[in-house]
Amino acid sequence: MSEIMRDSNNPILTINDVTPSMDGIEVVGVFNPAACKFQDEYILVVRVAEMCIQTEGWFKIPIMNFTGERPQLEIKSWKQGEINLSDPRKFWAGPYRYLSSISHLRLARSTDGVHFTFSDNPFMFADLTNEAFGVEDARITQIGDTCYLTYTAVSINSFGVSLAGTVDFQTVQRYGMILAPENKDSCLFPEKINGKYVALHRPSSDNFGRPSVWYCESPDLLHWGNHSCLLAPYENQWERQKIGVGPQPLKTSDGWLVMYHGCGDDSVYSLHLCLLDLNDPRKVLKRTSEPVFVPETDWEKNGFFPNVVFCNGWIREPDDRVLIYYGAADSCICVAETTVNDLMGFLDRGKSKR
Amino acid sequence: MSEIMRDSNNPILTINDVTPSMDGIEVVGVFNPAACKFQDEYILVVRVAEMCIQTEGWFKIPIMNFTGERPQLEIKSWKQGEINLSDPRKFWAGPYRYLSSISHLRLARSTDGVHFTFSDNPFMFADLTNEAFGVEDARITQIGDTCYLTYTAVSINSFGVSLAGTVDFQTVQRYGMILAPENKDSCLFPEKINGKYVALHRPSSDNFGRPSVWYCESPDLLHWGNHSCLLAPYENQWERQKIGVGPQPLKTSDGWLVMYHGCGDDSVYSLHLCLLDLNDPRKVLKRTSEPVFVPETDWEKNGFFPNVVFCNGWIREPDDRVLIYYGAADSCICVAETTVNDLMGFLDRGKSKR
Repeated sequence: MSEIMRDSNNPILTINDVTPSMDGIEVVGVFNPAACKFQDEYILVVRVAEMCIQTEGWFKIPIMNFTGERPQLEIKSWKQGEINLSDPRKFWAGPYRYLSSISHLRLARSTDGVHFTFSDNPFMFADLTNEAFGVEDARITQIGDTCYLTYTAVSINSFGVSLAGTVDFQTVQRYGMILAPENKDSCLFPEKINGKYVALHRPSSDNFGRPSVWYCESPDLLHWGNHSCLLAPYENQWERQKIGVGPQPLKTSDGWLVMYHGCGDDSVYSLHLCLLDLNDPRKVLKRTSEPVFVPETDWEKNGFFPNVVFCNGWIREPDDRVLIYYGAADSCICVAETTVNDLMGFLDRGKSKR
Repeated sequence: MSEIMRDSNNPILTINDVTPSMDGIEVVGVFNPAACKFQDEYILVVRVAEMCIQTEGWFKIPIMNFTGERPQLEIKSWKQGEINLSDPRKFWAGPYRYLSSISHLRLARSTDGVHFTFSDNPFMFADLTNEAFGVEDARITQIGDTCYLTYTAVSINSFGVSLAGTVDFQTVQRYGMILAPENKDSCLFPEKINGKYVALHRPSSDNFGRPSVWYCESPDLLHWGNHSCLLAPYENQWERQKIGVGPQPLKTSDGWLVMYHGCGDDSVYSLHLCLLDLNDPRKVLKRTSEPVFVPETDWEKNGFFPNVVFCNGWIREPDDRVLIYYGAADSCICVAETTVNDLMGFLDRGKSKR
């Protein structure tokens, strides 16, 4: 019987473990971490979301201003009633959309994979105009000596997938936006396939069908083409709204093991799996018909955005155990443990642990 | 005084100039042509839209079926009342969006730039699964000996920009989807700039801001990156809904001359100009604040989709005259004449002929 076991220390990171970036704002979520093992250290690249501490009659947001001599985090304000905050995450002001929070990426390190400590400073803060609303939801794929991060860059001009790289988790180099809006949820494969780098991604596609997982190729990681639709959401309660891929695919003798999330009825987020052909990842060999992991605990069911388990980071140990790091309710970080064998078991059953 | 003069032969191509692709369907529009001069011949790559001849109580659409041994144009039917046809161009059926018509690309040839004759057969018909709903709105850019076409590929999985090339306008080679959904309105620059090919494109961006014109780069025309937002719509009656670039940029000593369309109040489409820096097209040197061309004639104001002038094809003559080919009301094709000098004049005035 395949199993994914929650750790008894969950949640392993919360908003209480990190201090705000400046006076007047507060951390409202630490969630959706990328994950890797680097020089025997467990590293999470955590999304830290911050909001303004509100004052009566106004709604304020933190936003990066690039018009001055150097970028600066500033507060932008609207009178209450000028904007509609029925969705706590975002709102329209005239023709422009804004986020109520700004996210940066911060490292958390551990020697055992469960007990993590945050760095004192952000690893990546909004640093380009196309990041003025923040950077979110990274995936890490190590290729050669470099750990590449694909992350969501958000600005007044929409959101796309940007690329960065680090060889030491001290400094980071940005390579610009590799997938144009509206796009997010992109992960790189850890090696070239048929001479090309390969990535999966999730264009938004509001006007046609449901947001789906797409495939693309690159000669150099910077420029991408040959896009094709790989997985469309199942028309069921778990995937009906949209799907998107999670962390870097794991290579197995049977194929590339890919985790993805589904957003279904009542915007519940759950985790799913598929297996792609080793030599042509455009071929879907197997796919779970039901989720392998769904919100169950209090901190998964309640939080900034309730009923969410969202995974964009996992670590495969040498003994084939897999540590699944996941954001819970856009608020905190949890870990669960399984094995490659158990994950393959879900695919062979074609259905989920419930 | 800058001028763009409509030709007295307008419209120069209509639905009466082409025969339907099969029994039971009819041509409802010939419009939005790409244009180039090739071996002294004027060539248009015209979008030909076809719909089913409807029978009482049913709504039928032509659609390409790729499940059989070879692709085949088939009819798909819904009972009237099952679907909502308030937008004549498209409708939802359950979770899927469909188009009411299917478009292919067909050549029209001329020796004088005004009197055109259609080829008997399509130049490009839906031929890949990501084209099952048709191919639309090409742009032509000649680079070396090859005329490259960027066109919109539409399927049940949304729409993106695909690339094709021809060296003779007899045969055509497809290079796949180069810009993932939702994207259209893409044109290539005719030469490398700083060692890279350059294109403009229009991601849809429904969830953030207004659909805008973006810039990107490529080493090989097949793979694209370094995306950045170049032009956002002005908040005025002509551009408020969205903007998108037209035909291949024209190189002038002052910069790259770019035509774009605006979709404004009441979904009126008009034509606009901007001038981009020769060595870094991400720098916008000038931009018209009002349209240079708006729907005026009967066939521009009335048709399948009324009040549209849409340009994705122009030809610069050796004497610097510019022939502007444009779709009118998604129904027919017109031509207007101006000069590079006059177009630059619009930019210097910073406003339009009205």
